[in-house]
Amino acid sequence: MKDIESAAQTYIITADCPSRTGTVDVVTRFLFEQQCYINEIHSFVDTTENRFFIRVEFRLDSDAIFNQDDFTEQFEQRASQFEMKWQLAPRPYKSKVVIMVSKHDHCLNDLLYRYRTGDLNIEIPAIISNHPDLEELAKWHGIPYYHLPITKETKPEQEAEVYKIIEESKSDLVVLARYMQVLSSDMSKKLSGRAINIHHSLLPGFKGAKPYYQAYDRGIKLVGATAHYVSDDLDEGPIITQSVDTVDHSYYPEDLAAKGRHIECLTLSRAVRYHIENRIFLHGNKTVVFGK
Amino acid sequence: MKDIESAAQTYIITADCPSRTGTVDVVTRFLFEQQCYINEIHSFVDTTENRFFIRVEFRLDSDAIFNQDDFTEQFEQRASQFEMKWQLAPRPYKSKVVIMVSKHDHCLNDLLYRYRTGDLNIEIPAIISNHPDLEELAKWHGIPYYHLPITKETKPEQEAEVYKIIEESKSDLVVLARYMQVLSSDMSKKLSGRAINIHHSLLPGFKGAKPYYQAYDRGIKLVGATAHYVSDDLDEGPIITQSVDTVDHSYYPEDLAAKGRHIECLTLSRAVRYHIENRIFLHGNKTVVFGK
Amino acid sequence: MKDIESAAQTYIITADCPSRTGTVDVVTRFLFEQQCYINEIHSFVDTTENRFFIRVEFRLDSDAIFNQDDFTEQFEQRASQFEMKWQLAPRPYKSKVVIMVSKHDHCLNDLLYRYRTGDLNIEIPAIISNHPDLEELAKWHGIPYYHLPITKETKPEQEAEVYKIIEESKSDLVVLARYMQVLSSDMSKKLSGRAINIHHSLLPGFKGAKPYYQAYDRGIKLVGATAHYVSDDLDEGPIITQSVDTVDHSYYPEDLAAKGRHIECLTLSRAVRYHIENRIFLHGNKTVVFGK
Amino acid sequence: MKDIESAAQTYIITADCPSRTGTVDVVTRFLFEQQCYINEIHSFVDTTENRFFIRVEFRLDSDAIFNQDDFTEQFEQRASQFEMKWQLAPRPYKSKVVIMVSKHDHCLNDLLYRYRTGDLNIEIPAIISNHPDLEELAKWHGIPYYHLPITKETKPEQEAEVYKIIEESKSDLVVLARYMQVLSSDMSKKLSGRAINIHHSLLPGFKGAKPYYQAYDRGIKLVGATAHYVSDDLDEGPIITQSVDTVDHSYYPEDLAAKGRHIECLTLSRAVRYHIENRIFLHGNKTVVFGK
Repeated sequence: MKDIESAAQTYIITADCPSRTGTVDVVTRFLFEQQCYINEIHSFVDTTENRFFIRVEFRLDSDAIFNQDDFTEQFEQRASQFEMKWQLAPRPYKSKVVIMVSKHDHCLNDLLYRYRTGDLNIEIPAIISNHPDLEELAKWHGIPYYHLPITKETKPEQEAEVYKIIEESKSDLVVLARYMQVLSSDMSKKLSGRAINIHHSLLPGFKGAKPYYQAYDRGIKLVGATAHYVSDDLDEGPIITQSVDTVDHSYYPEDLAAKGRHIECLTLSRAVRYHIENRIFLHGNKTVVFGK
Repeated sequence: MKDIESAAQTYIITADCPSRTGTVDVVTRFLFEQQCYINEIHSFVDTTENRFFIRVEFRLDSDAIFNQDDFTEQFEQRASQFEMKWQLAPRPYKSKVVIMVSKHDHCLNDLLYRYRTGDLNIEIPAIISNHPDLEELAKWHGIPYYHLPITKETKPEQEAEVYKIIEESKSDLVVLARYMQVLSSDMSKKLSGRAINIHHSLLPGFKGAKPYYQAYDRGIKLVGATAHYVSDDLDEGPIITQSVDTVDHSYYPEDLAAKGRHIECLTLSRAVRYHIENRIFLHGNKTVVFGK
Repeated sequence: MKDIESAAQTYIITADCPSRTGTVDVVTRFLFEQQCYINEIHSFVDTTENRFFIRVEFRLDSDAIFNQDDFTEQFEQRASQFEMKWQLAPRPYKSKVVIMVSKHDHCLNDLLYRYRTGDLNIEIPAIISNHPDLEELAKWHGIPYYHLPITKETKPEQEAEVYKIIEESKSDLVVLARYMQVLSSDMSKKLSGRAINIHHSLLPGFKGAKPYYQAYDRGIKLVGATAHYVSDDLDEGPIITQSVDTVDHSYYPEDLAAKGRHIECLTLSRAVRYHIENRIFLHGNKTVVFGK
Repeated sequence: MKDIESAAQTYIITADCPSRTGTVDVVTRFLFEQQCYINEIHSFVDTTENRFFIRVEFRLDSDAIFNQDDFTEQFEQRASQFEMKWQLAPRPYKSKVVIMVSKHDHCLNDLLYRYRTGDLNIEIPAIISNHPDLEELAKWHGIPYYHLPITKETKPEQEAEVYKIIEESKSDLVVLARYMQVLSSDMSKKLSGRAINIHHSLLPGFKGAKPYYQAYDRGIKLVGATAHYVSDDLDEGPIITQSVDTVDHSYYPEDLAAKGRHIECLTLSRAVRYHIENRIFLHGNKTVVFGK
């Protein structure tokens, strides 16, 4: 977090490709040739799938002029020889995040707090809900609130409207902050890799509806939450991060919910941070996360 | 742990019954009349099932003479009016625990350490295994080791032998310390409420075989263990306690297993302690645990 | 949390006294005579100091009429024979909590969220700050905000004003939610046992100013927070609860602060909950906490 | 942990130097030129101290012949231009670890378990103690046990003997596994950076003698342990890793000790693992740890 000013000259490059000799060098040599200073570098090789992942945070020498197009064109020539999928992002970069909610406001409240204090470096072009309840909270933060009710019949139209808001605001990420609705298969696919959901159980335990009630019935001794990318297959998307806290027999479902709230907030906001800081790679139905 | 000497005069009474006014008083008044001093008292009412649970640790005035038979006869007269199931146990009471293992020795090693240092106040009349591998470890601790191989065909005979050892040693508890064999329905029933298993996942996630492999495939970010009473329904018995630790994408199944070992040890030994200190009540398919 | 309606008829009795036979019975027998139903009972004996502590949550039979004055008069006759200090409180009881802040708003924001959603069953008659910054947040929640600047010279006057607000609002508790000022010895004494402070370190490590900077300099690998009662001796008051999270070498003081924020919130709100639910006993420079 | 066979061809290079452009490239380019495949790379820049740290795990192409002397000579030419301190180590490399103990055996027992199962890839040329108590345990593991009593007067001689054992066995690391003796200033200096101590508190809280008693007196709600390098300044050496567990008022010093045992074991073994896997850099009075 040091040197906020010079951070304007900081970038993150992420890449993944089949694993072979030279995959690190192709990145680090190029950055050296461009006189970039590497702040931090992480790599990982999945030896089962034979795939390589790398994340490099670098900054430019003080008065260098950085031409992103030139960088892209030149690096692509080398990266393509490694069949590399890669991405370059300035940091700090203010990601645009659309938040979807239902009536529960704890995750929204937490995200808004982190938004207004700058703890999460995001813009929020829209808060979308199928209920009107949380409009006041959105308004106090000066964020447009879209009340888009949903029924079985109107789901396609509602989702089309939602998608339009996401697209028109050029949003980078959609966060389902206890939205309580299952996205259609079509919508899930369109948002693949850029929609994060918080599920209030430690997946794969207690998939589906009312996980705190399921957990109560099973007599669990730890209550947890899972942040994951939305996929076509309910509660089966790639897991980003998980947290737990201890409980005992005296926790009724309402008590689990109360205790679980801060865990949900913490888990979801961590996942959002990882995403906007380009720390996550999708890797089949898993994630590679260079966390902090 | 204070006053180890006077602890010889310490007892634990546990009871549960339908919930109604007077359920605490019937216990506490009787203890007062017997001039017992209450060290610690915990109670819980399950308002859904309308059932009351209580655990009282008490000691006798210094030179009192305690007649357990008289106590039992007299208290039963009152307890029966509340349809109370109850139990009286001296503390410290050296429980007899039979340990069953396969080839993995980490849980056994941990239990034996706690046994030989007195951390767990137990006797171990037998270690039973379907493999010969851990005999040396048993021997060094001076504990009889029974190598009872098992095949599909010989399972009934093997279990009969196991049961004989448990019964003849008058054991209070059977601990499946990574035994890796599913007990038959009949055996599960015979050991109901006195056999604890450690499962190396956070149940209900990853039931059945090879949970670390299942967890790896699902891309989990927390690895856990669950200690539970054995029941007829595999990995569905009442949960006693659970623990977790964080992992990331770089953990292959072998790494999950390595990281999980201490979690398994910790979780299993805690469950054993709760059991032998009469801290656990079976309550349908759940447990009420007055833990410490 | 069950039976919210009947909860109107729920009470908590807490008591402590020198340890001797009959200390539980004197409470439980009286409650039985009054036809009270005990929901939950916890006791503890400090065998070093020879002192007994008990907390009982009880409810009245459905249509009983409860006369608190009669209860008090009658129970006091018995309690006094045990030199018992005791307290009776209805539950839910909406505690009045004055919050004091400086410029950091994360703990305030968290407490206000829990206040407005009913997660903490409190009224907040006043938010007091030596800075004007957080007025907007207070206002949005409809809570009076007192901006009372403080200098070395004006400290006595400022504290007198603060005390007046606390007294006139008949507040039960004062919460220093990152107030960043040391209360005078006189003020500390006047608020003894009813003022909770959050210190952003794991006491007794890093007492005094700028604990995150101290922690950074020492190279710690866990960052923590401590909620404690304010005492005359800075950061030496009785500890109520503590929490931690893991960090590494890459955390500068600002990063520790960022990571520590949710820990501070969680720790402080837990301490407030314990206090208002009468779960805490002051016991010399320690606390006995019957937590949940 | 994959590919144990090919792991014979795996190496770790660690380096640190003043921070400037090219510090990553000088390592990664050289490795590329040597046709080394990078499994994992971590770097960190301390922007306050302007110092760069890197750890790279690499393996050789299947049938390459690796000449460590050539590698060293050639890389040194480049590294010296960056004033780089660096180290090359084969992996797996069986570190030689001398363990020093007193009478408490829990940490020793844990380390021996990890040693005999291969969980820690170490040799133990000697266990040294100022008491005879743990000889039996050492013997069962086939490890020479040196009983070297110590008094104020004989300390220099005793330490000379200890040092001789360390040197003659060419040990890489000394582990004070609850040795309970303070090393002399001279001895601390001679073992600087290669002696790890476990202190049973969360430093800097409760330095010095009897931390569990100190913690009890202070009424803490978390019990912890700290593994650190031994330094001349008691309990002030660079911290490697720390862990905690929750406790409450009912924990007397003996109970804290009992609960703390597994935390000490876990914390110490983790520190040892980090050290022998070349994951730790000494950095003034702190450490940089590329943990896993």
